[in-house]
Amino acid sequence: MATLSDIGLAAALNIITAFIFLLAFAILRLQPFNDRVYFPKWYLRGLRASPATSGAFVNKFINLDYRSYIRFLKWMPDALKMPEPELIDHAGLDSAVYLRIYLLGLKIFVPILVFTWAILVPVNWTNKWLERTGTTFSDIDKLSISNIPQGSNRFYAHVVMAYAVTFWTCFTLKKEYETVANMRLHFLQSEKRRPDQFTVLVKNVPPDADESVSEAVEHFFLVNHPDHYLTHQVVVNANKLSKLVEEKKSKQNWLVYYQNKFERNQSKRPLMKTGFLGLWGEKVDAIQHHISEIERLSNEIAEEKENVVNNPKAIMPAAFVSFKTRWAAAVCAQTQQVRNPTLWLTEWAPEPRDVFWQNLPIPYVSLTVRRLMVAVAFFFLTFFFIIPITFVQSLANIEGIEKAAPFLKPIIEVKTIKSFIQGFLPGIALKIFLILLPTILMMMSKFEGFLSISRLERRSASRYYLFNFVNVFLGSVIAGTVLEQLDTFLKQSVNKIPETIGVAIPMKATFFITYIMVDGWSGTAGEILRLKPLIIYHLKNFFLVKTEKDREEAMDPGSIGFNTGEPQIQFYFLIGLIYAVVTPLLTPFILVFFALAYVVYRHQIINVYNQEYESSAAFWPDVHGRIVAALIISQLLLLGLLSTKEAASSTPFLLALPILTIGFHTYCKGRFEPAFVRYPLQEAMMKDTLERAREPNLNLKAYLQNTYVPPIFKEADSSDSDDDDDDDANDKKWEKDNVLVPTKRQSRKNTPAPSKMSVGSSPNQQDIQAKDKP
Amino acid sequence: MATLSDIGLAAALNIITAFIFLLAFAILRLQPFNDRVYFPKWYLRGLRASPATSGAFVNKFINLDYRSYIRFLKWMPDALKMPEPELIDHAGLDSAVYLRIYLLGLKIFVPILVFTWAILVPVNWTNKWLERTGTTFSDIDKLSISNIPQGSNRFYAHVVMAYAVTFWTCFTLKKEYETVANMRLHFLQSEKRRPDQFTVLVKNVPPDADESVSEAVEHFFLVNHPDHYLTHQVVVNANKLSKLVEEKKSKQNWLVYYQNKFERNQSKRPLMKTGFLGLWGEKVDAIQHHISEIERLSNEIAEEKENVVNNPKAIMPAAFVSFKTRWAAAVCAQTQQVRNPTLWLTEWAPEPRDVFWQNLPIPYVSLTVRRLMVAVAFFFLTFFFIIPITFVQSLANIEGIEKAAPFLKPIIEVKTIKSFIQGFLPGIALKIFLILLPTILMMMSKFEGFLSISRLERRSASRYYLFNFVNVFLGSVIAGTVLEQLDTFLKQSVNKIPETIGVAIPMKATFFITYIMVDGWSGTAGEILRLKPLIIYHLKNFFLVKTEKDREEAMDPGSIGFNTGEPQIQFYFLIGLIYAVVTPLLTPFILVFFALAYVVYRHQIINVYNQEYESSAAFWPDVHGRIVAALIISQLLLLGLLSTKEAASSTPFLLALPILTIGFHTYCKGRFEPAFVRYPLQEAMMKDTLERAREPNLNLKAYLQNTYVPPIFKEADSSDSDDDDDDDANDKKWEKDNVLVPTKRQSRKNTPAPSKMSVGSSPNQQDIQAKDKP
Repeated sequence: MATLSDIGLAAALNIITAFIFLLAFAILRLQPFNDRVYFPKWYLRGLRASPATSGAFVNKFINLDYRSYIRFLKWMPDALKMPEPELIDHAGLDSAVYLRIYLLGLKIFVPILVFTWAILVPVNWTNKWLERTGTTFSDIDKLSISNIPQGSNRFYAHVVMAYAVTFWTCFTLKKEYETVANMRLHFLQSEKRRPDQFTVLVKNVPPDADESVSEAVEHFFLVNHPDHYLTHQVVVNANKLSKLVEEKKSKQNWLVYYQNKFERNQSKRPLMKTGFLGLWGEKVDAIQHHISEIERLSNEIAEEKENVVNNPKAIMPAAFVSFKTRWAAAVCAQTQQVRNPTLWLTEWAPEPRDVFWQNLPIPYVSLTVRRLMVAVAFFFLTFFFIIPITFVQSLANIEGIEKAAPFLKPIIEVKTIKSFIQGFLPGIALKIFLILLPTILMMMSKFEGFLSISRLERRSASRYYLFNFVNVFLGSVIAGTVLEQLDTFLKQSVNKIPETIGVAIPMKATFFITYIMVDGWSGTAGEILRLKPLIIYHLKNFFLVKTEKDREEAMDPGSIGFNTGEPQIQFYFLIGLIYAVVTPLLTPFILVFFALAYVVYRHQIINVYNQEYESSAAFWPDVHGRIVAALIISQLLLLGLLSTKEAASSTPFLLALPILTIGFHTYCKGRFEPAFVRYPLQEAMMKDTLERAREPNLNLKAYLQNTYVPPIFKEADSSDSDDDDDDDANDKKWEKDNVLVPTKRQSRKNTPAPSKMSVGSSPNQQDIQAKDKP
Repeated sequence: MATLSDIGLAAALNIITAFIFLLAFAILRLQPFNDRVYFPKWYLRGLRASPATSGAFVNKFINLDYRSYIRFLKWMPDALKMPEPELIDHAGLDSAVYLRIYLLGLKIFVPILVFTWAILVPVNWTNKWLERTGTTFSDIDKLSISNIPQGSNRFYAHVVMAYAVTFWTCFTLKKEYETVANMRLHFLQSEKRRPDQFTVLVKNVPPDADESVSEAVEHFFLVNHPDHYLTHQVVVNANKLSKLVEEKKSKQNWLVYYQNKFERNQSKRPLMKTGFLGLWGEKVDAIQHHISEIERLSNEIAEEKENVVNNPKAIMPAAFVSFKTRWAAAVCAQTQQVRNPTLWLTEWAPEPRDVFWQNLPIPYVSLTVRRLMVAVAFFFLTFFFIIPITFVQSLANIEGIEKAAPFLKPIIEVKTIKSFIQGFLPGIALKIFLILLPTILMMMSKFEGFLSISRLERRSASRYYLFNFVNVFLGSVIAGTVLEQLDTFLKQSVNKIPETIGVAIPMKATFFITYIMVDGWSGTAGEILRLKPLIIYHLKNFFLVKTEKDREEAMDPGSIGFNTGEPQIQFYFLIGLIYAVVTPLLTPFILVFFALAYVVYRHQIINVYNQEYESSAAFWPDVHGRIVAALIISQLLLLGLLSTKEAASSTPFLLALPILTIGFHTYCKGRFEPAFVRYPLQEAMMKDTLERAREPNLNLKAYLQNTYVPPIFKEADSSDSDDDDDDDANDKKWEKDNVLVPTKRQSRKNTPAPSKMSVGSSPNQQDIQAKDKP
């Protein structure tokens, strides 16, 4: 059992670590040559073109102005200064609402802290139970529920506090849900015209012997939505094309690298081996080799494009169908079209940049099977992931390495290195697995067949949370491997499970306090330093960058990473709610995390991250649901804990809590969730009416044409042309064409901005014409 | 342990009972004076006006034609003769599909019987395990899985059979789901024009200071469905009115009773007491008293009607909104109207006669609370119903009765009566409870706030099934009270539960065989006898009937009673699937039940039952889901049973079964369920287009007007007028007015046929005019 001073020491250590991170950040961010690492968002929005310094040459790389170092925490108030509406405008609603999760943490836990410290700390402290029982204990335990004698009436205080915590949390959650739902609706309402407002994604178009997919779609909607159908775009399977384009891009990067190398040292033409990873094979001239490779790929890309265009098998039975009004699109997205509910499936089209193109061709039956397979796979991943890792660990010992790579033997046999490896190796497989886990979960979601990146991330987030709950939370509370736990649970009686965990809870308080400090405090401070993007940017800058455009591409602003970030916050909600009544000492640590993370992520969102899509806070129902789940878990565990304390008179009062909470959840689900799933007809009608009044002559068809062409077509086009500025020129031409719709998002790089080269409605035509272009 | 001969004896007894019932039925149904009890459906359809006999006076009451007695089972082939399309036409799709559940039972269990008897019976029989263990056993046990030695490889046969049973059941279920879905869609498609095809029920119209509900509805839909809105009818709270009308009806019945009495015995005017149940109070002239009472009620009804019309508080914030096309109604029913998902809720309007009017005024928030309350109440009802019953039983002993009613003492003290009461009393509270249970469950569903009778019945059915599963199935398998069981389960480890039940399963085979014979065989044969309606009809006939119309009202055709009948069938599916592999001997008994019940219910549906509503087989997803649940339960129990048999090598193969079955269910849900929930736009568009082509000048507004007036208004009107034929006259007038739409359903008595007295769209206007009428 750790004492208060142990905790103090750990806290001091972590505070110092966090402080060092923040200091390093404060220095690095002021250096002009890091400007694109720490302020990429401003570059991407076109509001900054170069570091805001002038003067001597050296100033371009290092900031010599000592005054700027003095107030090294100045970024914190700066980050907090931007008001929310401006933030929504600057970074999108998703980011603004994401920050509200941290704020919600503060809103929930500050009053809980006040209440529990005012009432429970004195109630717990003034007992002498632990002293009397003679077990070893620390001051922390004296502050916790462990210090209350068996069967004491003081447990009533905890029951009452559990009610207070539940009511306060539910109240805050409800208010927040209401606010976010209103923000979302307001955002959707005040938004500029967007193609997805008029567009519905139609999947599983049935095959027809006489008609092509495009014709079938047109006929179907002309018949069944006669007054509303406008146009459509069929979906093509461009997965192979996309792979070729990727490959060409990589070769081009290598070409640039070798050319730079040759420029710097003209005496020697760079050579390379053609074999695996350049480790063996024939030695060739690297520049020549890559030029010919690129040429080969260009030909293959042209061939594949022709194939996609001409081969009817490349046309997928899916289409983006656009309507004349938002009302009609809302109607089509919310209704069933034909008898067979697996054909002509309609759903809201995601934003063009949010579409996950690869999954569009998956048929309905396959989806059920995939979902089931992923569910089973996730179950095994969660409960049995430790088995293959143990197996790998047993292989990865020193003897194994020496056998596989005999040439390393002399190095390994050095004593210090050997002991280092021996200490390091056993954990490495697990570490690598945990680093890869979000990627694995993302792959699972992709395999499941979701059609938008936002939904992929949401599904991955919920899986990550479950994994964390089972393996980090339960794994820490109940000692032993996860497999042993599973066995314990299966063999245990149903009502004993909360008891088993509940009893262990107070004893693990110090562990979780340390966890919060390491993962929450230092981790968050480390996030702001952006060490990985910093290194990668400078490496790229050194080897690849020739033009300003290259430099722009070398920037990696990243994004919030909902699939990893949100489960982390949820974990703190879980721990915070569980310990709120049991060990009130833990709450301040949680609060520090929420406050620090709020400031850090607000700064990052303003200056760094560049969201790839805008889902208009569609994730909030998940966030809300998981906090409610955490609340119910905390209630059950408290119930389990108290039932071992012989507090027979007070415990039954707790039984109503989970039932009430479930009722609250049902209410919220019915009351607020539809705002995140459906699009009310009244809103659509209002926007339509307004628009008709404002722009009676709008050519909607021209506006919608080619918005839903896979981005790969554009990329293929741009990499075809040797002119580097072709892309920008296209962008500008496009902007000029669309003076009617000046949205801010058009200037972003990641937007698959519609190409204006075609007039037809399907990519086929577009491509035929694109090829005709010189 | 019962032996085969015990079972044979029980079977003989039950077969004789069933035979007696069938014989009694065969004789009674041929008597002309019972004609309206055994063939009410034909009277209601207007195809029969009087018993089909002629000749002597006595022939009107008793059938003296000996030939008709010879082939007393002739009704069986008669019942099977009517082809399904004609049956749908005759009794509706609900009834036809309901019969398919019994057929489904035959389809599932006949091949299972063949397979299991061909393979498992020899496998089980050829062991000597039971003889060797030396325990007492019967021949039945020799045929069951109990006879296989521990750890034998023969268990592989059972595992393979479990797979065969699962695959066959799933295959049949899928085919049946497909058939029923197609039948439903075909039925909806080929149906005549019906008001509910054009109508949507709008609930939770927000209050408006400036507009009445009717105005608000009109404005809202004119704005948001501008091209489609046609008309609407607001909902009024007529619950009090309906109570008054009920009371008046009952008084009128009593008046007729006393008048008849007086006519028969003119010497003495009938007297009655005014107090409770006529047991005490002032003695008055019964005829005079009732006439004055009826007059008072008539005045009150008139007053209340005025109140409903003039009081804006009686207008509920709900309305039936009709559209110009089915397409528009389908759109409105499937979409969300406004931001706030608890306002302007739209759903398909049920058929006019299916509407449960009382629940229309319940607001949204109240619904959540009610649902939660009912869930908790049902939980306690299921697990703790035994407590109040034990309490009542402890009160209802002989001493208690003697104290409460001392005048009964001399009778009770007679020895035989006393012992009879002592043997009879303990069970009576439970018996009464079980008889009342469906009513209690129905009340729960009503309290929950469902808006149509069909949904009320479906919800009650699923609750009844759960209750049966817990209290009849688990209660029989695990001895002891239900409370003890609950305790056992809570205290037991999770994976031990299927084991505990699984082990008990083979031992309970004889109990369930007896249960099937008593409840399934004799019960079903008893159903056809209709003893209760028979007695009530003759009582009414004797005391109340004066005119032919009275006689028609005295008929009680009843209906299928989905809320009690379906759970009973499901219980047999459950037992059948569980024992299919464990004790193949049970399957034939199940099969006899399904075959007998199929014939009996087909006869009843053709000749007796009169469905109150037509939900177009909307219950099938429930039926399907419960059979799948039974399948999964049977798999888990087999898993539990085998895991105690040390069959370590074969048991793990069973693990995949429940997972596959869940996958199958998910697939079916996605593939077929939408056909029962939503209405595809293509179908609506097709019907609209056809109709426009056929009847270009249809006045839809006139057709739809007043279809959704609460039936009570019509009843109140008809009971206001002293002319008995007013009702029929109205019906006829209505039929004449609607020559365009000759549906067969108009002639039914239970249809709240729309009154044609008004031209306005709200019942207010209708009533104002109705009052103006003399």
